[in-house]
Amino acid sequence: MTLPLNPAMAATDAPPVMEARRWLTGVAFPPNRPLINVSQAAPVEPPPLALRQAIADAALSDDAAHLYGPVLGLPALRTEIADQWSRAYGGEIAADQVAITQGCNQAFTAVMSTLAGAGDEVILPTPWYFNHKMWLDMQAVRTVPLDTGATLIPDAEAARALITPRTRAIILVSPNNPGGVEYPAETLAAFRDLCRSHGLSLIVDETYRDFDSRHDGQTGGRPHDLFRDPDWAETLVHLYSFSKAYRLTGHRVGAIVASSARLAEVEKFLDTVAICPGQLGQIAALWGMRNLGDWVAGERREILSRRKAMVDGFAKLDGWQLLGCGAYFAYVEHPFPLASDALCKRLVTEASLLMLPGTMFQPAGSEAGKRQIRIAFANVDVAGIDALFDRLKAFRP
Amino acid sequence: MTLPLNPAMAATDAPPVMEARRWLTGVAFPPNRPLINVSQAAPVEPPPLALRQAIADAALSDDAAHLYGPVLGLPALRTEIADQWSRAYGGEIAADQVAITQGCNQAFTAVMSTLAGAGDEVILPTPWYFNHKMWLDMQAVRTVPLDTGATLIPDAEAARALITPRTRAIILVSPNNPGGVEYPAETLAAFRDLCRSHGLSLIVDETYRDFDSRHDGQTGGRPHDLFRDPDWAETLVHLYSFSKAYRLTGHRVGAIVASSARLAEVEKFLDTVAICPGQLGQIAALWGMRNLGDWVAGERREILSRRKAMVDGFAKLDGWQLLGCGAYFAYVEHPFPLASDALCKRLVTEASLLMLPGTMFQPAGSEAGKRQIRIAFANVDVAGIDALFDRLKAFRP
Repeated sequence: MTLPLNPAMAATDAPPVMEARRWLTGVAFPPNRPLINVSQAAPVEPPPLALRQAIADAALSDDAAHLYGPVLGLPALRTEIADQWSRAYGGEIAADQVAITQGCNQAFTAVMSTLAGAGDEVILPTPWYFNHKMWLDMQAVRTVPLDTGATLIPDAEAARALITPRTRAIILVSPNNPGGVEYPAETLAAFRDLCRSHGLSLIVDETYRDFDSRHDGQTGGRPHDLFRDPDWAETLVHLYSFSKAYRLTGHRVGAIVASSARLAEVEKFLDTVAICPGQLGQIAALWGMRNLGDWVAGERREILSRRKAMVDGFAKLDGWQLLGCGAYFAYVEHPFPLASDALCKRLVTEASLLMLPGTMFQPAGSEAGKRQIRIAFANVDVAGIDALFDRLKAFRP
Repeated sequence: MTLPLNPAMAATDAPPVMEARRWLTGVAFPPNRPLINVSQAAPVEPPPLALRQAIADAALSDDAAHLYGPVLGLPALRTEIADQWSRAYGGEIAADQVAITQGCNQAFTAVMSTLAGAGDEVILPTPWYFNHKMWLDMQAVRTVPLDTGATLIPDAEAARALITPRTRAIILVSPNNPGGVEYPAETLAAFRDLCRSHGLSLIVDETYRDFDSRHDGQTGGRPHDLFRDPDWAETLVHLYSFSKAYRLTGHRVGAIVASSARLAEVEKFLDTVAICPGQLGQIAALWGMRNLGDWVAGERREILSRRKAMVDGFAKLDGWQLLGCGAYFAYVEHPFPLASDALCKRLVTEASLLMLPGTMFQPAGSEAGKRQIRIAFANVDVAGIDALFDRLKAFRP
């Protein structure tokens, strides 16, 4: 008896993070060379005590924290995002243009479900975030890769050549996972114009916005001007995650900013898949937004200092090339005559380093992917980054 | 500029619960006749204090409660379900045959994604749980309705006649939402045999299992013998929700029991949509399973006493016919010459009763749906049920 199986799901790759975690199985790391795990784009410490206390207080004294809430999220949290984002981006965003989801992955799947079905096409720059590719695969939506070359910055004119009558959307991630690059405001504006002229949606995933270096002054602290366009909601869909800034990964809270008409369609998906986002996570996110602004700025400064250590380190490391560096990630080209997946497996056993090969972020068979590696450095302090470079320097394939 | 829109999503109905909630807008209920809301299949009280305390303790002192966990859920919770279910159903269920999800709706969508894609068919008895229908619609899977007639019990021979080469699964809900009926063990066995002989999956959603009257002694407390079949995992997928028994709706925790091969496919979906289930909700569910068995038994006895009040009340109410009664629900035929949706709107303003019309649980245009109403009585005590019958008795259309 064969297992009844949706062929689109069968054709979807297994999650690569779990594959990489299996490389650790049975490996004993020497005491003088413990594992440095730079595979994960996630905080490894819990949120600040005051935030944990706010969650505990709600669990004990707020009955509503245990019951269903509105499908599109707590009104106070939707309003807080609308207000803070309007100020931060210098535009007008209303509370009914904000929806809360069970994490940013769900935000993406909800939005894409309203846009593209089996046989439709979506343009996705490479290297890509693998969960985006996995969702499109399991929905039988065709992913059209857009090569970003050595800059890792996608080009709107190159994207124009890929548009067909089945194209529904272009997806950008800035600051980029896995590339680390912060997309220039002009790049995002050019993609917005392209999408508008072709009746496409532009999805901009800003999961890592809180760690964008431009927050600290340049261009008024704005990473882009998309929300300054009074007609932004016709074309733009913005995605956000509370997991990184407030260390709430285990609570699963994300957000969508889009037209209220699009959110009426998103609501069907979320009612069916989620019913509502988890209440304690939303309460935590709201508390964080209201109370942890300074704390998040300190987190950003710390990560930016680690980013500097990464940039400096690669400048001195023979043969390696740093393609992009920002947010949680450095994305690099290695100098060795072997494929990145084989190399990353050897780095586990021979250098106690766990990093993800570019093959996990590129289309199957991609030559670029074999030369590339993603290093999620955000959880490693500057001393750890020094140790990482010592090991890379010493490594001989 | 038209909004780019997936036609399958556009063709999906909006969530009916929200439509019904809008009927309340602007209605002032007289002080001597407050609203009795029997529209919702959800607890309205928070969990017991000791469970809330366990959540608060974890928030404060368990760092892992705030961080990502395994995609398929906390190992201890998977093991606890495997152990308790093996005993309760008299079969063998292993921990790697259990996955935890962000609520039971997500469990359903994850499983169905592994089974059916655009153009495939799924057999769904009517009246149905509308979120099941909505998911199939937005995935462009064809829902084939299986009429259950006046008994509300589906017939496997009638289902056999609906099977085509595109059929992938049959979905049953027992105790049933919206019908309230507890499916006989023989019915479930007949569907299992039918599915096995045609290479289909049988999905059995047991969200309301904790309130099944058979738990209190009959047939050894087992509602069915499906897990006693040593080859159950070839055919059966069981779904469960922690929302009802432990009042954890706001935490979104559900479960899938299926073959480990199916769960490897489910893992792709959950990694992409959820990354992991919320950690505090899982901690709460595990604490509940370990500590609240007696408390849940008390909840079941209370709901069964309310069910008796419903059965007795309809036996004395002229013209109304009780089609099914159990778990949270009574499903009835009304005696009036108007459609159930019009009737339910009038019951809001003229009798301060909010209940959902059968049209929300039946295919568009169904004549049966116009005569039917679902009454979710579980949150109303016996005195409230008496008041409900007084109002129905007094109502004249």
